[in-house]
Amino acid sequence: MTYKKVNSAEAYIAKVGEMVENGLEKFLVAEGDNPTQLAEAMRYSLLGGGKRIRPVLLFAAHESVNGNFANALPVACAIEMIHSYSLIHDDLPAMDNDDLRRGKPTNHRVFGEATAILAGDTLLTTAFSLLSNKKLYQKIDDSLLLEIISIIATASGINGMAGGQMLDILAERSAIEEENLLIEIHKKKTACLIAASLKVGALLGGASEKQTAALEKYGMEIGFAFQVADDLLDVEGSVDLLGKEIGSDVQRGKLTYPALYGVEKSRSHLHSLIESALETISFFDEKATPLRLIAHYIGYRER
Amino acid sequence: MTYKKVNSAEAYIAKVGEMVENGLEKFLVAEGDNPTQLAEAMRYSLLGGGKRIRPVLLFAAHESVNGNFANALPVACAIEMIHSYSLIHDDLPAMDNDDLRRGKPTNHRVFGEATAILAGDTLLTTAFSLLSNKKLYQKIDDSLLLEIISIIATASGINGMAGGQMLDILAERSAIEEENLLIEIHKKKTACLIAASLKVGALLGGASEKQTAALEKYGMEIGFAFQVADDLLDVEGSVDLLGKEIGSDVQRGKLTYPALYGVEKSRSHLHSLIESALETISFFDEKATPLRLIAHYIGYRER
Repeated sequence: MTYKKVNSAEAYIAKVGEMVENGLEKFLVAEGDNPTQLAEAMRYSLLGGGKRIRPVLLFAAHESVNGNFANALPVACAIEMIHSYSLIHDDLPAMDNDDLRRGKPTNHRVFGEATAILAGDTLLTTAFSLLSNKKLYQKIDDSLLLEIISIIATASGINGMAGGQMLDILAERSAIEEENLLIEIHKKKTACLIAASLKVGALLGGASEKQTAALEKYGMEIGFAFQVADDLLDVEGSVDLLGKEIGSDVQRGKLTYPALYGVEKSRSHLHSLIESALETISFFDEKATPLRLIAHYIGYRER
Repeated sequence: MTYKKVNSAEAYIAKVGEMVENGLEKFLVAEGDNPTQLAEAMRYSLLGGGKRIRPVLLFAAHESVNGNFANALPVACAIEMIHSYSLIHDDLPAMDNDDLRRGKPTNHRVFGEATAILAGDTLLTTAFSLLSNKKLYQKIDDSLLLEIISIIATASGINGMAGGQMLDILAERSAIEEENLLIEIHKKKTACLIAASLKVGALLGGASEKQTAALEKYGMEIGFAFQVADDLLDVEGSVDLLGKEIGSDVQRGKLTYPALYGVEKSRSHLHSLIESALETISFFDEKATPLRLIAHYIGYRER
């Protein structure tokens, strides 16, 4: 699980992905499976898929400041639960009305809308159960854990992810095309929770203020880049690799980078965001190798 | 704000209600109002209505163990936000499909389904922001605050409120009539978060283990009673007093106390629950007067 043992972003992502999958499974089992239908709907969306990019970045940030990994897993799993809840709710008929996610029917297509809404609600709630359950942590400072909860809640609320999703929907429905709004949407909806993942990974690893600030900034840049890459994949990606329909953003009149600037300019903006993120962490030593590999991966990913 | 200054449940409820209203207003303003539509939808359901029974019971429990009220308000407001989120989501077309709540159109009837879903999500998230924001508390022990977060999250998740709502929906759709299931639904959906309100009120007031256990037990009994009273009001209540349609439970084939046992037997069960709750806190002194008044109020309420 250290940078010395991996030499590609893919290998690092696979390693963290396996740990997170096992962690999520374990934490869900501990919650119990009654009512069965709700537990199944939560498991359906949470397990067995996804790049786990937020946990991956949390671990990589943690590693870059020489963290010992003792308490990273429950926090990473909580963030992944929040991400998973947001996908379930975003896919609902009243929101983006998507039928396919990661190559599988979306949650509400399998379990119905009522259960999907509750599965999202419960994943969000369970995330905060994990974060506040002292038994899951080793020798952690209580005030640090409170700070972590606060950072994650703020990144997920009106000034972060949920606010971004609201703006996204409003922009789509009124067909607004405006650069500043697009930047705000991408930052809030995607970059805030990614930046929070890096920040809490840093704090859990005992990072200095300077390191923490740099990792958070890298997170905003890489998170923004991640969303621009997503926009581009919706135009140019392969349905087999992505596991979802292509061109759905365009069909829906969604405000995206390619829609505003075209593919070429969007790609060059993506690459300059990656360069900027790499520059932000240039003062880190070789323990930041995973962060550097992942930046390249995000800039050039095909799924 | 003490038992010496009130001699009726109504007066106590009015006093706490005013404090909570002001607190909620202040905490929402601190969160900011961007995006406007999301902030407005949150305010619409959270402010200006409701009995605030969970905060009322939290304050009354706090007072019964001689708490100094220093940190009760943000915790009470967080619980009220969680309650408010649950009402918004329960009213959605995919769930109970209600048009009226507290005499006003439901959230999704005013703001649309997408915004209502997000307003619920954001209220839930904001509750945990409040709970983890150390700046809102005076000299609070970090480990106590973590324990409070954990209690509230657990009471709201699959083993509490959200699990209860899932069972409620499943029972309704399959027209199951089964006593044990009804008890489980009422306990999880309603009593768990009410019991948690009493427990955290007690813990914030420095309660002993014996006091805390008794207040939590009182909370489960009074919470259960509250829901039985709600079932009865749906059959016998006044639309003017309740601000919602009467008979909607029956129309919908909902599993309720009057449906299983009839009105008379339900009412006698309600009263025995109240007696039992009063017995549970019989060893408390006169500082538990508000808790005793509220127990009577819940047993005989007309709205």
